[in-house]
Amino acid sequence: MRLARIAHPDGVAFGSIEAEGDNDDAAQVLEIADHPFGKPNYTGRRWPLSDVRLLAPILPTKVIAVGRNYAKHAEEFGNEVPAEPMIFLKPSTSVIGPNAPIKLPPASSRVDFEGELAVVIGQPIKNIPVDRAQAAILGYTIANDVSARDLQQTDGQWGRAKGFDTFCPLGPWISTDVDPADLTLTTEVDGVVKQDARTSEMVHKVADLVAFVSSVMTLLPGDVILTGTPEGVGPIEAGQQVSVTIEGIGTLTNPVQAA
Amino acid sequence: MRLARIAHPDGVAFGSIEAEGDNDDAAQVLEIADHPFGKPNYTGRRWPLSDVRLLAPILPTKVIAVGRNYAKHAEEFGNEVPAEPMIFLKPSTSVIGPNAPIKLPPASSRVDFEGELAVVIGQPIKNIPVDRAQAAILGYTIANDVSARDLQQTDGQWGRAKGFDTFCPLGPWISTDVDPADLTLTTEVDGVVKQDARTSEMVHKVADLVAFVSSVMTLLPGDVILTGTPEGVGPIEAGQQVSVTIEGIGTLTNPVQAA
Repeated sequence: MRLARIAHPDGVAFGSIEAEGDNDDAAQVLEIADHPFGKPNYTGRRWPLSDVRLLAPILPTKVIAVGRNYAKHAEEFGNEVPAEPMIFLKPSTSVIGPNAPIKLPPASSRVDFEGELAVVIGQPIKNIPVDRAQAAILGYTIANDVSARDLQQTDGQWGRAKGFDTFCPLGPWISTDVDPADLTLTTEVDGVVKQDARTSEMVHKVADLVAFVSSVMTLLPGDVILTGTPEGVGPIEAGQQVSVTIEGIGTLTNPVQAA
Repeated sequence: MRLARIAHPDGVAFGSIEAEGDNDDAAQVLEIADHPFGKPNYTGRRWPLSDVRLLAPILPTKVIAVGRNYAKHAEEFGNEVPAEPMIFLKPSTSVIGPNAPIKLPPASSRVDFEGELAVVIGQPIKNIPVDRAQAAILGYTIANDVSARDLQQTDGQWGRAKGFDTFCPLGPWISTDVDPADLTLTTEVDGVVKQDARTSEMVHKVADLVAFVSSVMTLLPGDVILTGTPEGVGPIEAGQQVSVTIEGIGTLTNPVQAA
């Protein structure tokens, strides 16, 4: 199933996107009552996908990101791969949906894209063992861990560099039936491929990350874990468009604007 | 006014604590409908303060903490004071109230207290100028920025070390009429004074911090900024009790337990 959050003519709702085969031209969005956790409760209302606006597919209470989880990306900045996952937080106010603009803050002169697989948690968990982590996952979406590279280096802690409003594009929807083990991940800026990797290159795998983060903090339904970016990160500038594509999920595209 | 969040015989509510003079022995809690932002709307229900349990006075959507904001504390670890505030995030799941136990995680063998003045935001703000920051503050409470010192050094990023469940005690209430410029701040472990400083020693002052953080991320009502800890931090162990006292606000006390 593909779960989306949409703006439709009467408001905002969660919905399930139904299409015939791989073609979304005639896809419909079936409205889900309340929330998308557990078995969906359909309201009976539906709209053509082309008539609704896709929003960030979830509004997480927290976004946990993992640093240096692809060896070649760690190398790009001369860093070692950490033995245990290195985690940091992005504020919920940084989340935007597909096609919403990434706004470049005046405080930074170098803002980078970082395409990432995002895990959406489906139930409250704490200290979950690795072998039960998969069952606690609602599904997967795509993230761009937008980063002010200059401030990241100046500040040491990444709360500012990775915490600006609009610095966490999520979407376009949550795919619930995808196996995250070995998916292609590509990032394009204005159509030029910048990142081209496979999720199998992750140092710490999805189930290990969920178990690890849950050993630190309680994860709530809708919380999001960004699983790290592969090599090839680079700057984005006002007027450009950045697209992250993950096999089996889709493409997350955002324009870039001066703030 | 002193704003609290309480567990009373019929549920949970916000309330205003009313006492005669400085003596809370006969203090009453007047229930506030809905939320404590803006002019309180009293329900007419009230309880003796001694009959209710104080909870964390607010459930923030995010907790932003400031590192190295007291010069002598930065010196303790051989760090420079940063020219601009260094910010990091603590997850909302780390928040607990007064008298709730701080739980020491097995992953760490060195957990420290850090007594801090906490600013509670009263309205949605983005890019607020310094001279209007004060008006956006609901009030002040006390925080303990509990930190797994060993993991803080191992990880580099502080998402894990400062993000464990129970690592952000807040309370006992929000004081709305206090001037944060020059208050005594003391932290005691089992009655022994460990930190003894004044908020006037802050490098970046409260209004500057609010303006700075709001230049990065939208702040929402109830969001909390921890303003940094003074010198004297040190370890806490299971069975101990840690109390942070700030002049004009009160005392935040938490027992320490093995997880």
